[in-house]
Amino acid sequence: MGQTTIKDVARRAGFSFQTVSLVLNHPEKVARTTRATIEAAMRDLEFVPSLAARALRKKPSRSIACVGCLGLETPDDEPDSMPEADPGLVLQAFAQVTDQHGYTLIHRRCRSDDPESRARIASLVSEARVDGLVVCAERRDDPLIALLQARRVPFVVFGLDVPGAHCAARADRDAVHEAVAYLARTGSRAIGFLGGERAAERFRGYRDALAEAGLPLRADLVAACDWTPAGGYRATLALLDGPSRPDAIVAANDRVAFGVLKALHDRGVRAPGEIRVVGFDNVAQGAYAIPSLTSIAVPTLDMVRFAFATLVAVIEGTRAPDDLAQKRFPTRLVLRESTDTGGRPPF
Amino acid sequence: MGQTTIKDVARRAGFSFQTVSLVLNHPEKVARTTRATIEAAMRDLEFVPSLAARALRKKPSRSIACVGCLGLETPDDEPDSMPEADPGLVLQAFAQVTDQHGYTLIHRRCRSDDPESRARIASLVSEARVDGLVVCAERRDDPLIALLQARRVPFVVFGLDVPGAHCAARADRDAVHEAVAYLARTGSRAIGFLGGERAAERFRGYRDALAEAGLPLRADLVAACDWTPAGGYRATLALLDGPSRPDAIVAANDRVAFGVLKALHDRGVRAPGEIRVVGFDNVAQGAYAIPSLTSIAVPTLDMVRFAFATLVAVIEGTRAPDDLAQKRFPTRLVLRESTDTGGRPPF
Repeated sequence: MGQTTIKDVARRAGFSFQTVSLVLNHPEKVARTTRATIEAAMRDLEFVPSLAARALRKKPSRSIACVGCLGLETPDDEPDSMPEADPGLVLQAFAQVTDQHGYTLIHRRCRSDDPESRARIASLVSEARVDGLVVCAERRDDPLIALLQARRVPFVVFGLDVPGAHCAARADRDAVHEAVAYLARTGSRAIGFLGGERAAERFRGYRDALAEAGLPLRADLVAACDWTPAGGYRATLALLDGPSRPDAIVAANDRVAFGVLKALHDRGVRAPGEIRVVGFDNVAQGAYAIPSLTSIAVPTLDMVRFAFATLVAVIEGTRAPDDLAQKRFPTRLVLRESTDTGGRPPF
Repeated sequence: MGQTTIKDVARRAGFSFQTVSLVLNHPEKVARTTRATIEAAMRDLEFVPSLAARALRKKPSRSIACVGCLGLETPDDEPDSMPEADPGLVLQAFAQVTDQHGYTLIHRRCRSDDPESRARIASLVSEARVDGLVVCAERRDDPLIALLQARRVPFVVFGLDVPGAHCAARADRDAVHEAVAYLARTGSRAIGFLGGERAAERFRGYRDALAEAGLPLRADLVAACDWTPAGGYRATLALLDGPSRPDAIVAANDRVAFGVLKALHDRGVRAPGEIRVVGFDNVAQGAYAIPSLTSIAVPTLDMVRFAFATLVAVIEGTRAPDDLAQKRFPTRLVLRESTDTGGRPPF
């Protein structure tokens, strides 16, 4: 037996399928008792409307929404704080790719801990404002993801890999693993890590690489910080004032790393001579930092293209909803001055 | 006599105003001869439909579009180049402000030199996809602006002041004027400028301040460059290899200035000791540059709020279309290490 359709529901409820359709699309236009009867029939038949199919039956909007999930650690939402630059890059890459394909990009932010905010995002597709969503989440258990899955909204997760969802993931753990393994292999023995809970995957890579290199995980070399230059600056001063000095620092991202370099400079600590530094993201400015910054290059544009192509395939029905597209994009360690070994051969 | 309305047109053409309305909103549903008669009546009466009014009569979309105009000097559109970070900040600020007011933000890019690209942007409102536009243009004579004016599309220009248009402008000329006047007042005699045509307003401020300080405008100290760290790096090396060395450099923006600092560092030229450096935008990273970067702070969030509030007022009809809202936002020179005078008193 095939999937239950609205004609099955109509037959069971004793109404025309047009009325059933109206209940799905404009429930406010249907008399309360009629609606109750039809909704009961839907429940009896375990009918689940396909939002993607509904969006298709309507005129497709040829719009997608890029949704930034604000986690607890994400700064801003204070009216006067300026937003961060990094998500701006992802957003711009989506603007570029959607534009090239004649799609319109809508940007929305979701306070994932607020049910109303989540509901507004989840209804963007049923309201036919967009055909599907790209969700930039920081946590696998972001409740927006579960809501979208339950409502069968076409969406792709960007950045993370999430079981049961299409995703374009960054290989965060492997990326930091590679960087720390490189540092250990080339002589660093006291490698610090600046991140915090938001960097959980990256921290895993750090921890695993230390273990493999036979180096202890030392709590006094690990610190949480804002993902900003100011955060990196303050955390580095704290490390320098701590019980033991690191000989290398892996920063959660390049912005943090710029703060690290400045703090070392202000304290007269030579980088890379005394402390080597690694960032993450490989932003254009890193090559012009003093010293130029070793970092982890993320194929953002490839990830954006994959996420977009996947979403369009789901929207247009050329990919079945349960044929998951899950790709983890490898990163690349880009070596620059900030990790020079000063002529010492790697051992 | 008041403005011509669709009732006047209907009377003249001998059709109901509903039919005239249909010609305006769904011309494809009107018989060709009827349409021709009504369109002739519109021409006779010099009737111009107000798109804002039409958008209001339709259900408002509560969406606005932020349109980035790609000038000739703007990099990218090569499929693999990553977009710049600066426009990303403006875009994010718009995302934040629209979000706070329950509006949806759409991002579009316009190839202003391409008539089709301009036409697609201009039709966003008549297609009821958005209620109005914010246009981030780099030139007053951007042809998109003229097209939007001719079609009476509700829009606000962001960044520039344009005669006859609502605008939230940055005081570019005054900003650079202040910086150059400061440099001259505190001892710099050979002040270079890295910008190019795209920085025309900023260059005016440079030129005027030099003249007021009695310093010559020297072609060998002015160079065009990409608005990137790489552009600043290359242009600085060229200046250093040129016939005469500057004792200060004003860069088109902070990204360029980061490249300037790196080039000076790589050539062993002390900053600010031998060459002082000023950027533009006051990005968060500037405070963590080595040396920390003197820059020009732009009230981006205030500008975005003003542009949004103006656009909403125009859309909702609480501001008459010819009651122009034009505000030029003053900037602020933020002094940091890169322009230190080394204890020399300003004279």
